[in-house]
Amino acid sequence: MNITVPTLLLDKAKCLQNIDMMVEKASRNNIRLRPHFKTHQSAQVGEWFRERGVEAITVSSLRMAQYFARHGWTDIMVAIPVNLREIELINELASAISLHVVAVNPETVTALAELLEIPVNLWVKIDTGYHRTGLQPQDHTTLDEVINNVENSDKLIFKGFLAHDGHTYKQTEKEAIVTIYNTSVYLLQLVRDRYKTRFPQLQLSIGDTPSCSVLQSINGVDEIRPGNFVFYDLTQQHIGSCSFEQIAVCMACPVIAKHPDRLEIILYGGSVHFSKDVLPQQNGALYGRVVELTEKGWTLPVNGIELVSLSQEHGIIRANEEQFNKYKIGDLIYVLPVHSCLTADLMKGYLTLEGERLEHLSGVQV
Amino acid sequence: MNITVPTLLLDKAKCLQNIDMMVEKASRNNIRLRPHFKTHQSAQVGEWFRERGVEAITVSSLRMAQYFARHGWTDIMVAIPVNLREIELINELASAISLHVVAVNPETVTALAELLEIPVNLWVKIDTGYHRTGLQPQDHTTLDEVINNVENSDKLIFKGFLAHDGHTYKQTEKEAIVTIYNTSVYLLQLVRDRYKTRFPQLQLSIGDTPSCSVLQSINGVDEIRPGNFVFYDLTQQHIGSCSFEQIAVCMACPVIAKHPDRLEIILYGGSVHFSKDVLPQQNGALYGRVVELTEKGWTLPVNGIELVSLSQEHGIIRANEEQFNKYKIGDLIYVLPVHSCLTADLMKGYLTLEGERLEHLSGVQV
Repeated sequence: MNITVPTLLLDKAKCLQNIDMMVEKASRNNIRLRPHFKTHQSAQVGEWFRERGVEAITVSSLRMAQYFARHGWTDIMVAIPVNLREIELINELASAISLHVVAVNPETVTALAELLEIPVNLWVKIDTGYHRTGLQPQDHTTLDEVINNVENSDKLIFKGFLAHDGHTYKQTEKEAIVTIYNTSVYLLQLVRDRYKTRFPQLQLSIGDTPSCSVLQSINGVDEIRPGNFVFYDLTQQHIGSCSFEQIAVCMACPVIAKHPDRLEIILYGGSVHFSKDVLPQQNGALYGRVVELTEKGWTLPVNGIELVSLSQEHGIIRANEEQFNKYKIGDLIYVLPVHSCLTADLMKGYLTLEGERLEHLSGVQV
Repeated sequence: MNITVPTLLLDKAKCLQNIDMMVEKASRNNIRLRPHFKTHQSAQVGEWFRERGVEAITVSSLRMAQYFARHGWTDIMVAIPVNLREIELINELASAISLHVVAVNPETVTALAELLEIPVNLWVKIDTGYHRTGLQPQDHTTLDEVINNVENSDKLIFKGFLAHDGHTYKQTEKEAIVTIYNTSVYLLQLVRDRYKTRFPQLQLSIGDTPSCSVLQSINGVDEIRPGNFVFYDLTQQHIGSCSFEQIAVCMACPVIAKHPDRLEIILYGGSVHFSKDVLPQQNGALYGRVVELTEKGWTLPVNGIELVSLSQEHGIIRANEEQFNKYKIGDLIYVLPVHSCLTADLMKGYLTLEGERLEHLSGVQV
């Protein structure tokens, strides 16, 4: 591998282990795995899921749905409240695949009922505690209004209720994540029970990487939608969702300067490569942990050397003397990212340890 | 303009005013303007500079140099310490244009002297206080070593000393920025004076947007390299480099949900559109300020409505009741970005208010 510029390495073996782990967990719990593809956004990585029997996927934009539809996926949920301004693309996709969309208010449902040319599957999002979006489970008035609007439309196929527990990202204890999961399932079931006479087939869908990683038995829902687990990252390790060994992506960045007076190494690799996402630390900010390449992949994070600052194209590594002396100008430094979704989006592609280039939607011309 | 997804609007008239202001200031001070093109990374925006007589430019990667070289630029400085791993591209560019590179240590100079096939212009970077990279002005031993290595090579044309005062970004008072500028020029001149007998033609180059914006008379250097001023943003307004009226880019994002209970509006527009760059506030974080579209552009930021949170594809707007009630689902909300360089890099292109699409290097297939 002749790496000349910041490059995102992908350890395919680790990635496949992560996929296998979640496929196996879903199967063991008799639950459908509808993995979120926003983390990898790669046709090739998608194939690895397909080879393991995955048929249904989640995406976070209609463009992403279009991309994966072109790569043969036929059951796609766009897990963000419907963007009515893209109704043309919704109709186009609905004519080609089994499209699932998400509503969080009566206005969107009314508009969809009017503008859809072809039936789509509709999920109602419930806010089970994250408070980003979704209907409150106790807001029966609005829920009734939404569901009456769905029932009255021949263009909307009411599938069920879904939730995203983004608040698990703020936890670092397994018990807290389990409590969030159990609360969400309880609330989703309450809402479903309210409508089960009218709609006996309603399903429940849930899923964030922390819950789906931490829980061994996943009960009470029909479907899980974790995404980040395909690569994991330092944030997930901090939460407790994964071990360092499971992180399947790593940045390779050239050393362009060294400052012995302050034991800092300057990388070619900045916020346009890593993103500005950060793990706050007691003594400052952490933008990445350094590993060393081995015959078969990379080591655990090395102590005494960290990525502590990013500007547009520069990164600053702070090290102890021993680590500082290991690197010379022109070397590569390998860095585990804080947030693999954003890093992959910026890097626009992957290089596997076997030397294969894999694409990412953000590097694909529209 | 039929905007369906998050879109970066460019007010060309404002952008031209910003360019004119800096061109006029450089001309009045009899200094060469070598604008940093990393902010816009657009061949078309580059043309607006060329039409105003600009001939020399700055970029932050060799790929960016290659892009602008293909668009007819022949005098390009790559203002990041040389990445030796890209020596092939350096040689390729050096054979086509007047290429300027930056060194911050003796090792790089020695390697360049050996690996270059064609002479390139070399600048030595001095750390005048930002402490990201550069040689310390008092480190005569290393400076002598670097400069002896340059002198002994027939492949290196020693041009002078440059600095980047990134620490002006942490200021909000004009006097502090002026002090930083004056200190930097003083230090650069001291260093130049040490070598002026051997190299009588040495030049000094400086330039960050805050200094170049705040100072009316720019003395003591030969060249300035500001970049962000072409668009400006909320960070620059916060520093005092510009007024809100000068900000020339604005995100347009669809409204996908509203939460009356907490007066929050959910945008389709997240960290993959805006970047995670943030302006810390007394009562939380600020990711953008909301404006309203007018006949000729957009208004000043409206009080009582702000972008306060970002996840991958969602943004959360918090508003007072009056502002909250102005928007309905499917509307667009217009948001001034915190950091225009990173937002433009993620958005991969621009839509002018006249409806013209302009490219950004990050959206150009390699």
